[in-house]
Amino acid sequence: MILARVLGNVVSTVKLPVFQGMKIMIVQPLDGEGNPQGQTFLAFDTVQAGVGDVVLVIDEGNSARTILRNPQAPIRAVVVGIVDDIER
Amino acid sequence: MILARVLGNVVSTVKLPVFQGMKIMIVQPLDGEGNPQGQTFLAFDTVQAGVGDVVLVIDEGNSARTILRNPQAPIRAVVVGIVDDIER
Amino acid sequence: MILARVLGNVVSTVKLPVFQGMKIMIVQPLDGEGNPQGQTFLAFDTVQAGVGDVVLVIDEGNSARTILRNPQAPIRAVVVGIVDDIER
Amino acid sequence: MILARVLGNVVSTVKLPVFQGMKIMIVQPLDGEGNPQGQTFLAFDTVQAGVGDVVLVIDEGNSARTILRNPQAPIRAVVVGIVDDIER
Amino acid sequence: MILARVLGNVVSTVKLPVFQGMKIMIVQPLDGEGNPQGQTFLAFDTVQAGVGDVVLVIDEGNSARTILRNPQAPIRAVVVGIVDDIER
Repeated sequence: MILARVLGNVVSTVKLPVFQGMKIMIVQPLDGEGNPQGQTFLAFDTVQAGVGDVVLVIDEGNSARTILRNPQAPIRAVVVGIVDDIER
Repeated sequence: MILARVLGNVVSTVKLPVFQGMKIMIVQPLDGEGNPQGQTFLAFDTVQAGVGDVVLVIDEGNSARTILRNPQAPIRAVVVGIVDDIER
Repeated sequence: MILARVLGNVVSTVKLPVFQGMKIMIVQPLDGEGNPQGQTFLAFDTVQAGVGDVVLVIDEGNSARTILRNPQAPIRAVVVGIVDDIER
Repeated sequence: MILARVLGNVVSTVKLPVFQGMKIMIVQPLDGEGNPQGQTFLAFDTVQAGVGDVVLVIDEGNSARTILRNPQAPIRAVVVGIVDDIER
Repeated sequence: MILARVLGNVVSTVKLPVFQGMKIMIVQPLDGEGNPQGQTFLAFDTVQAGVGDVVLVIDEGNSARTILRNPQAPIRAVVVGIVDDIER
């Protein structure tokens, strides 16, 4: 699981039927200070996150399928929480 | 899942029989601005994408096998959508 | 499994119910000399580690689920030990 | 799956019995232009590839086990094809 | 699987019971020339490797569990061979 910031959403009309109606977000991984680190990727939303939010993202297929309660979903990354603060 | 651009296709005559007739694309991962990031890799096409298209690529074996409806396919990455736009 | 240093904890009120009551730590991977290497990520604690501790972190979903004795947990990384020393 | 060039073979006399008789190749990942990108790693050969060949390598455990028809093989990467050309 | 050099061993008194009695090595990945590449990580030994040895390391959970003959072991990387030479 990583910290990330939501940058935007992807609009795709030609895609597999299983993805219809799912919100695909572009997320930028963040370090412990909230600075960008590494490469952006795509994640499905489960917590009504918005653009600019700092979120928790899990990037593992089996975890993503458990969260979506669909053991067959072809999905790897999911937004699972919105971050309020970092304690040090 | 990531954003990527299709760069071309691989021609291979000596390969495992399971890959016969499948189109293998070279894809370049993109950031949220559409700029290249990270390393190119290979993905199988499922949406009739063409060279130059910005696409959605899922890079996880179990997801790839589900999409191809073949639980035994030795495949890891698949092109699953064509991107129209990014909303911010 | 990697060496890492605990940097802090994440506070998140909006998150999936499965994560309620679990302590989410930000960890910084370390090289063999104890210097930072690579990107920070998040891990769940199982050994009462504190901020500043050098720890062992396993980053693989099936391992994490075994350690938490929950084959369905949507979890990928877990802190599994506290490091006393490196022998060379 | 990625493009890679075969750099050489590893000679190892002390190794697990399961690896006896298998050819372990060092491969260098390549970008779409045939230039080196990223880190070298090791892969088992299934197509009689030789040093200098540009090959297709799949780097996922379940795929590797399917290709070798051994669901228990402790193997992650396999050379599965020899590349003739890249179409753009 | 990758080439790596053994840098040292980790001493940890506070750790999960499943890791008691197992030797945890710090390994540095190497390229085809024997030069360091990428980040160090931790691996369990199965071939009595020593500090300074060039070894074969497999970094995939299912492979590691097969090698240790323990389908439940929360383990991801294992040293599986000692390298004598590289043929080119």
